[in-house]
Amino acid sequence: MYKRQTEEAAGRELPPPPDVVRSGYAELVVTDLDRARWFWADVLGLYVQYEDDDRLCLRGTDELTHHCLVLRAGAAAALDHLAYRVRTEADVERAAAYFTALGRPVRRVPQGEGTRGVGDAVRVLDPLGFPVEFFHGIERGERLIQRYDLRRGAEIARLDHFNICTPDVPAAYAHYTALGFGCSETIEGDAHELYAAWMYRKQTVHDIAFTGGAGPRLHHLGLATHESHQVLRTADLLGALRQEHHIERGPGRHGVSNAFYLYLRDPDGHRVEIYTSDYYTGDPDHETYRWSVHDDRRRDFWGNAVIESWYKEATPVLDLDGHTQPIGQTLLDESAARVGADGLG
Amino acid sequence: MYKRQTEEAAGRELPPPPDVVRSGYAELVVTDLDRARWFWADVLGLYVQYEDDDRLCLRGTDELTHHCLVLRAGAAAALDHLAYRVRTEADVERAAAYFTALGRPVRRVPQGEGTRGVGDAVRVLDPLGFPVEFFHGIERGERLIQRYDLRRGAEIARLDHFNICTPDVPAAYAHYTALGFGCSETIEGDAHELYAAWMYRKQTVHDIAFTGGAGPRLHHLGLATHESHQVLRTADLLGALRQEHHIERGPGRHGVSNAFYLYLRDPDGHRVEIYTSDYYTGDPDHETYRWSVHDDRRRDFWGNAVIESWYKEATPVLDLDGHTQPIGQTLLDESAARVGADGLG
Amino acid sequence: MYKRQTEEAAGRELPPPPDVVRSGYAELVVTDLDRARWFWADVLGLYVQYEDDDRLCLRGTDELTHHCLVLRAGAAAALDHLAYRVRTEADVERAAAYFTALGRPVRRVPQGEGTRGVGDAVRVLDPLGFPVEFFHGIERGERLIQRYDLRRGAEIARLDHFNICTPDVPAAYAHYTALGFGCSETIEGDAHELYAAWMYRKQTVHDIAFTGGAGPRLHHLGLATHESHQVLRTADLLGALRQEHHIERGPGRHGVSNAFYLYLRDPDGHRVEIYTSDYYTGDPDHETYRWSVHDDRRRDFWGNAVIESWYKEATPVLDLDGHTQPIGQTLLDESAARVGADGLG
Amino acid sequence: MYKRQTEEAAGRELPPPPDVVRSGYAELVVTDLDRARWFWADVLGLYVQYEDDDRLCLRGTDELTHHCLVLRAGAAAALDHLAYRVRTEADVERAAAYFTALGRPVRRVPQGEGTRGVGDAVRVLDPLGFPVEFFHGIERGERLIQRYDLRRGAEIARLDHFNICTPDVPAAYAHYTALGFGCSETIEGDAHELYAAWMYRKQTVHDIAFTGGAGPRLHHLGLATHESHQVLRTADLLGALRQEHHIERGPGRHGVSNAFYLYLRDPDGHRVEIYTSDYYTGDPDHETYRWSVHDDRRRDFWGNAVIESWYKEATPVLDLDGHTQPIGQTLLDESAARVGADGLG
Repeated sequence: MYKRQTEEAAGRELPPPPDVVRSGYAELVVTDLDRARWFWADVLGLYVQYEDDDRLCLRGTDELTHHCLVLRAGAAAALDHLAYRVRTEADVERAAAYFTALGRPVRRVPQGEGTRGVGDAVRVLDPLGFPVEFFHGIERGERLIQRYDLRRGAEIARLDHFNICTPDVPAAYAHYTALGFGCSETIEGDAHELYAAWMYRKQTVHDIAFTGGAGPRLHHLGLATHESHQVLRTADLLGALRQEHHIERGPGRHGVSNAFYLYLRDPDGHRVEIYTSDYYTGDPDHETYRWSVHDDRRRDFWGNAVIESWYKEATPVLDLDGHTQPIGQTLLDESAARVGADGLG
Repeated sequence: MYKRQTEEAAGRELPPPPDVVRSGYAELVVTDLDRARWFWADVLGLYVQYEDDDRLCLRGTDELTHHCLVLRAGAAAALDHLAYRVRTEADVERAAAYFTALGRPVRRVPQGEGTRGVGDAVRVLDPLGFPVEFFHGIERGERLIQRYDLRRGAEIARLDHFNICTPDVPAAYAHYTALGFGCSETIEGDAHELYAAWMYRKQTVHDIAFTGGAGPRLHHLGLATHESHQVLRTADLLGALRQEHHIERGPGRHGVSNAFYLYLRDPDGHRVEIYTSDYYTGDPDHETYRWSVHDDRRRDFWGNAVIESWYKEATPVLDLDGHTQPIGQTLLDESAARVGADGLG
Repeated sequence: MYKRQTEEAAGRELPPPPDVVRSGYAELVVTDLDRARWFWADVLGLYVQYEDDDRLCLRGTDELTHHCLVLRAGAAAALDHLAYRVRTEADVERAAAYFTALGRPVRRVPQGEGTRGVGDAVRVLDPLGFPVEFFHGIERGERLIQRYDLRRGAEIARLDHFNICTPDVPAAYAHYTALGFGCSETIEGDAHELYAAWMYRKQTVHDIAFTGGAGPRLHHLGLATHESHQVLRTADLLGALRQEHHIERGPGRHGVSNAFYLYLRDPDGHRVEIYTSDYYTGDPDHETYRWSVHDDRRRDFWGNAVIESWYKEATPVLDLDGHTQPIGQTLLDESAARVGADGLG
Repeated sequence: MYKRQTEEAAGRELPPPPDVVRSGYAELVVTDLDRARWFWADVLGLYVQYEDDDRLCLRGTDELTHHCLVLRAGAAAALDHLAYRVRTEADVERAAAYFTALGRPVRRVPQGEGTRGVGDAVRVLDPLGFPVEFFHGIERGERLIQRYDLRRGAEIARLDHFNICTPDVPAAYAHYTALGFGCSETIEGDAHELYAAWMYRKQTVHDIAFTGGAGPRLHHLGLATHESHQVLRTADLLGALRQEHHIERGPGRHGVSNAFYLYLRDPDGHRVEIYTSDYYTGDPDHETYRWSVHDDRRRDFWGNAVIESWYKEATPVLDLDGHTQPIGQTLLDESAARVGADGLG
C-alpha cells in the first residue's frame, strides 16, 4: 500500500527537495521554565548554551552547533517546531519552493527573527500537519566533547532523532521518501500494511520515526548517550530524587534499531528517549529491515510489555501561527493489533 | 510483633545454633536435564563441575567449592533442599542438636550418601517447612576466577542468596535471628507489621530473604555477576534466541539492596535472579534499613510495576522423604497492600 | 605547508575522483592461517563469512556486507591491499580514470578474479605507495546485528578505519583531500607542520589516518566495539589465555578522536586497534580540530607514555604484483618531537 | 621461610589479639587542604562528612560510619596513622594489652581527644614501624547508598584496603597472621621467598597488603567503586581538567586480586588506587593463591609494564609523637627480580 503512495508521490512534478543533513533541533513550549531546566539540564545533563527569561537553548556535549533543543516558556505544553539542518543555504530556498509546490503553508524566518542562533530559515506546515523548519546556518558552540568535567546526569551526547505520531503512516513514509530519506526499519502487518517506519538522512537508524496514532503529535525526542551505564544512571538519579514518576518505560532493548532505551516524561509531559547503541546505515544500498507486528520483540527485544500511555499519549503541535493543531484519528492501531503482547486490551 | 516472637525464641532453652558461614547451594528437581543444562550452563554461564545422566553440579566462576547449584532429574519440578555451609564439622553436629531440640525432623546424610562433592551433612525440615541442609566439608574446584576464556552468557560469578515464600514472615525472621543471621533490610507496614526481610551471615545484604506469600515455596535463587552489562547481556542473549519468554521481570534496580536485577524463569518455571551491586554489611552494629510498604521504590527503585506472576508463582518444596510439601496461605499480602503501586488489583 | 600542497593538487587538471562511501576492507597476508583464525575470529570475535584452505573472509556482527577483513595465507606477512567502497559502479570507473590521470599504476579486477564476494573493482598503487582497491558491488551477509548468541571475544561490530605510516603526511593529506575526504583532527607543530591527520568520508572521526613514519606501511586496522567493557574483556581474555604478549598498548583514551582504545598485535605482528566511542562528523561545515604536538594528551588523554614499538613497527605493503614495496624514511618524527612525553629518547 | 616466622610468633606467650573487623580509615597529613579537597572530594567523589579549618573527614557513599579518610593540614605530607575497626570495646583493650606484651609503644586516645567521630581508641607503633589505631565506636553517617544525586567524579563507594611498604615482608606476614588475618594471595620466588602478600579480615581479597620496599611507608590507599566505567571516568575527568599528571599507572587489571585498577597521586604525592571487582574470601578454609614473581601477569594481568615510581615512591609515616619515622631498606626487591618484565633496569 505505502509503496503505491510513494510511486504516486514520485510521479508528481515537483521541484527538487532540499538536501537534508540531519534532524537538527526541536523547539518545545514548556509551562515552567525552572522545572524544565531542572529536568533537561540537571537530570539529562544537556549543556545550557543560552538562556534568558523566556527560553533555554541546550545541546549535548558532543554537539558543535548552538542547540539541539529550545525550551520556550508558554501557556500550554506543545511542540513549536521540528528543525532539519540542510546542506547549503540554497537548500533552504529549495525547501521553500518544494513545500510551496506541495501547496503547504510556507513562511520565511530571517536570521534574528526566528530561533536564537539559527540563520535564515524556512518554516512549513508539512503534509502530515507538523511545523517543520529547514535551516543551514547556525552558530557554533565551544567544543565540549572531552569536557568530562561538565558531564552530569544522563550525560547526553547529542540529539539522535524525532519520533512523531501520525494517523497515516504510509503517507508519512511517502512524504519522507520523497524528501530523500532512507528507511532502515519498519513494522508491518501480514499484508505489508505499514504500522511504523524509521527513516534517516545521517548514517544512523533514524532522524525521524513514525508511530501510528492520533496526530499530528510529537511522540518523543531521542537523545543519545555513549554507553548503557549512562542510561541506568539516569533512572537511578530519578529514583534517588524521588522523581521516579518521570520514568514511563524501560530501560529496555528495542528490537527495532537494537538501541538500549529509557523513556521519560518531562514536567510538562513531553516524552524523551534516552537512547544508546544503534548501527551504521550509510551504505548506498542499505536495505530496510522489516519487523512483523506479531513479533513481540519489535518494541522490546526482551518481550516486556509496553505501557499503555506510551502508545496513547503525546505532545500536541502548533501551526505556524502558534495555534494548536487539531488531531486526527489513526487508521491502523499497532497496540490493538497485538492484544496481549503489549499487555493492552 | 515480630520482635516479640524473636524474644520468645530467645527465651527457649535451646542448644547453640550452628555457625552458618553463608548460603551454600540449592538442589532443584528439573524435568528435562538437557533443557535445564541449556538454561543454566549455556545461557547463565554456570560452569559444569560434574554431570551424569541424573544430575548436574554447577558453580559460578568465582566459586572455589564444588557447586552452588545441583540440578537433579525428576518427575516434577521442585526444590529438593537449600544448603548452608557451616564453619566447622562440629557445627554440623550443632545443627542436628539444634533442630532436634526444636522438635523438627532431622536426618544425617553421611558423605557419599547425599549430594555429590559434599561431606557429612545434616538435613532438617525447618520450622518454616523448608528442607535445609547444613554441611561443612565440600570438594574444591579449580580456580576459575581469571578464566575469562570460560565465561559465557550471564557470566555468573557466584551464588548470592536464596529467597523463599513463607506465609508468616515474622516467624521466619524469628527463626533466622535465632540462627544468628543479621537483618539488613525490611519492608514494613504502618504498624511495623513485617512484609519482607533480608537476612545475612556473609557480609552482603543477604543469604536469605522472605517474600510473604503462600508457602513453603522457593521464590528464587539469586546469582551474582560482577557488573550490570552482564545482566543486560543475559536479556539480549535470550532475545536473540527468541527465548525472551524466560524473562519475567526487569532489568531494574531494587530499592531494597540497591542491586541491579533481572528475573528469569528456567524451563521448569524455577525463578532465578541475576543480581549485581549490593553493599557491605560486615560491621558488628550494622543497622536494619526499613522500607515502608507504601514506598513504590522498595521493589523497583525506578517505580516500574511488578508483574503479578512475580508475587504469585513459586517453586514447591520437598520434605525429607521427597514428597511435595503442602502450602499454607499468607497472613499479610504485600501485593494487596499496594493496589496500584505494583499494578495489581 | 600542507595547505599549499592541497591547493597545488586542486590546481591540476584531473578527472573527478570517485565518490568514496567508506573504508571497506583490508586484505592481509598471514603466514599461519590457523593461528590467524584463532586471533581474529576466536579472540576478536569476527564472524567467519567464508573460509577455504587459503583464506578467511571475516566481518563484524553489525556489518551487512561480505567482509571487512580478508586473511590470505602467504610466505611473508604483509598488507595485500586496502579497499574503499564507492557509491556506484560508475565510481569504480572514475577511480580508474582518476589514478590513470595521476600517472599511477592501475589494474582492473573483474568480479570473480579478485577478492571473493567483491564485484568489479579497480586496484591502484596510490601516490603514497599503497595498494588500494575501489569497489562498489559486494555480496551481502545475513543480518547478525541482534545475534547476541554469536558474539564472542571482543565482539567486534564493524571496521572503523585504516591507519597508515607515510613519510610525508602533508602529501597524504593533500591526496585524500583531493579524493574528497574531510579532516576531523590533526597533530601539528608550532609552525603548523603536520605530524598526523585523521580523515573521513563516513560520518565518524575517520576512515583513514596518517602516522608519520617510514612508509608505505600499514600502521593498524581499527575495529569498533559498542562499549568500553568489550575492550576490557578483550584484554582480560588474552591474559586468561597467557597470550598477553599480543597486547601492545592500552587500554587508554585517545586525545585525538576521544575513542577508548586497545592495541593488539596478531600472530604475524599486524596491529589492530579495538576502538570504541568516537563522534559524529557529518555536518557540512565540520571543522578540523588541531592538537599541538606538545600536548601530551593527544596520543593518550590520560598522559600515559606510548610504547616505542607503537611508533616504530608496522606492516610492509605489497605492490600490485605482490612484491614488497620499498620503505622511505619519515620527514617529521612525532616521537622525536616530544622526547620524554612519550617516554622515548 | 615466612612460615617458620609465623610459627615462632605463634609460640610466644601473648595475650589474645583484638578481633579486627576491617580496615577502618587512614589519616593523612596534607600540606594544602584546599587542593586536597579538590582531589579527594571533587575528583574522587568522597562525601565531606565534616570539615573545619584544619581537617576534612570523608567517606564513600556506601559507608555508614563517619569517615574512611581524614585529611589533616600539616607542614609535610605523611601518614598520621592507619586505623582498624574492632568488634567490641573490649577488643580495644585487647589491642592495648597485645601490643604492650609485644613491647611496642602504646597510647590510649579517649573519645574526643583523637580523631573526630571516633570513640575510645588505642594507638600503637606496630612491629613494622607503622602507627596503627584500633577503635570500636564511631559516629554513624546518614545512609547515602542510594543518593545517586550526590555521586560525582570517581563515585567512590568505600575504603577497600591499605597497602604498605615494608622491607621485611615475611615479618609483616607473621605479624598480621598473629593478629588473625587470612592471606588471600602472595607473590613468591622460586624458593618461596615472600615478595608480597594480601591479607584480610573482612570477606574481600584484602584489608592490608605488603609491598616489599624501603619502609615503613604507606604505598597507597585502595578505594572501591562499583563498576569499571567509574574507574575510566576518573581518568577521563583528570584528562579533561589537564590534571592527567595525577595519573601514575593504569587503568589495568591486577593479576593479584583480579581487580580493575587506576593509581593516582594526590597533590601531596599520596597514592590512591581506584579499585573495582575483587572476590569473596569468607569461607573458613579459603586457600592462599600463590603467584610466581616470574609471572608477568601478577602485577598487570595484561602484561603492561609497571612504572618505576610505583615501586619506588611512597608516603613517609609518623610515630605516635608526630615525628617522621626513619626508613629501612628492603631485603627483597621485587622490581629487581624481574628486570625487563616490568620495564625496570
